[in-house]
Amino acid sequence: MGQVRQPEGFRDKLGRAIASSASLLCVGLDPELDRLPDRIPRTPEGVVQFNRAIVDATSDLVCAYKPNLAFYEAMGPDGLQCLLQTLKAIPSHLPVIADAKRGDVGHSAKGYARALYDVYGFDAVTVSPYLGEDSLLPFLDRADRGVFVLCRTSNPGASELQNLLVSESGTTCPLYEYVAWRVRRWNRHQNCGLVVGATAAEELRRIRLLAPDLPLLIPGVGVQGGDLAAARAAHHPDAPAIINASRSVIFASRGPDFATAARAAAQRLRDELAVSGRA
Amino acid sequence: MGQVRQPEGFRDKLGRAIASSASLLCVGLDPELDRLPDRIPRTPEGVVQFNRAIVDATSDLVCAYKPNLAFYEAMGPDGLQCLLQTLKAIPSHLPVIADAKRGDVGHSAKGYARALYDVYGFDAVTVSPYLGEDSLLPFLDRADRGVFVLCRTSNPGASELQNLLVSESGTTCPLYEYVAWRVRRWNRHQNCGLVVGATAAEELRRIRLLAPDLPLLIPGVGVQGGDLAAARAAHHPDAPAIINASRSVIFASRGPDFATAARAAAQRLRDELAVSGRA
Repeated sequence: MGQVRQPEGFRDKLGRAIASSASLLCVGLDPELDRLPDRIPRTPEGVVQFNRAIVDATSDLVCAYKPNLAFYEAMGPDGLQCLLQTLKAIPSHLPVIADAKRGDVGHSAKGYARALYDVYGFDAVTVSPYLGEDSLLPFLDRADRGVFVLCRTSNPGASELQNLLVSESGTTCPLYEYVAWRVRRWNRHQNCGLVVGATAAEELRRIRLLAPDLPLLIPGVGVQGGDLAAARAAHHPDAPAIINASRSVIFASRGPDFATAARAAAQRLRDELAVSGRA
Repeated sequence: MGQVRQPEGFRDKLGRAIASSASLLCVGLDPELDRLPDRIPRTPEGVVQFNRAIVDATSDLVCAYKPNLAFYEAMGPDGLQCLLQTLKAIPSHLPVIADAKRGDVGHSAKGYARALYDVYGFDAVTVSPYLGEDSLLPFLDRADRGVFVLCRTSNPGASELQNLLVSESGTTCPLYEYVAWRVRRWNRHQNCGLVVGATAAEELRRIRLLAPDLPLLIPGVGVQGGDLAAARAAHHPDAPAIINASRSVIFASRGPDFATAARAAAQRLRDELAVSGRA
């Protein structure tokens, strides 16, 4: 009698969220206790209150949210309760990406996939490629969920390993390009994407050429000073580039106007990214 | 009037634990709910009960414990409470290593370091090298704690990235060797070690030659079929190789004798590793 609800792939969900919000902006829900607005208690409960206010103020302007688990884990077990409460406050049509950067072997990888996809209910996760494809199968095999593999990260020292020249079968390229190439092969369920920092504009352009079919998750704009135009140029209608900002949005003000200030910052970024004109 | 307690470095604590237990065995406290003994409830409380029984039965036979966080996170926030309770059950003279394989940028890395070292109180953690040294500074800068960097992991597909040939300043070597070389430079506080799987005996020998001064954490013996003799040969009195077994010890029996069976399995491994004759 009722309709059978088909599991919705992450890419479909993300595509619809981009279309309905006309936005490429992903907001990072990364609460640091000592940067919370003055009126918010520095407790896990305070963080839930803060996150709810940020979500309420920005949810029509974003295509996704991305909590980084480090900030919740730093509050101990109560921080994970706070994460669960935060997730409940996010409208269900918006995909939520767990910025977890996990990467482990066999049974441990299964445990992480279960935690992030099933216990917390994230639509997608970030993972590390260092252990290779088999370590990521519990994520890759979930056709209903997304997997963003770290490729070229936004930190100042990212090149130390990621730009090393590697040789394989007679060709030579930087390690991050090799990772992009491997992830295209790991993408059997059309659920993979790449994490590429906006702080590395040249690498971002190379990766987009090498992986025109993969969604990109681009951190590093805002406080980290990444190249917004380069990030915007990486967007393809069929392989979106979603651009994450955390601190520049959520900590736009620490006064009583923090939520409206966050909304204004999100609005500004969304307009600069201007997907509406090209969708 | 009282003595000022100097923070004890991880290597000192580990060295003393090896000497007092005459053991190189590290036991992985990696509870999988569906493999718990029949009489143990499949709940976080049951896991605490199980872990306490395993620790009570083995603590004089091991030089360290290593909970992998994935198994606790898979139980949701209550699983982290279970981890805190488990840590309280471990005698304080034994170092406890968080097998977390974290690796993130700036503020996120600080959050993970705070969580693992200060909220949970781990003596050491495992981390991923993919993001480079600057991403690991919140761990590396803690001279009082240990940092085991993933070098050559134990999973079947580890070679996909880790054995790639990389070129730097005119020399060529596999990526895992490059990582070992970098970690020697990151080791300013004498608090670094490497994770090297016993399933890769040749790589283990190479790494020991390249990094004779770094402690090694060697998983992959037991169920994963790693080479116990190669693992044992990697031990140097001044740069220990500690050998981890998880499932082969903690799930030695699922009957009412599970704790004595775990003790017997730990005793066997400790004797095979035979540090007492060489300490």
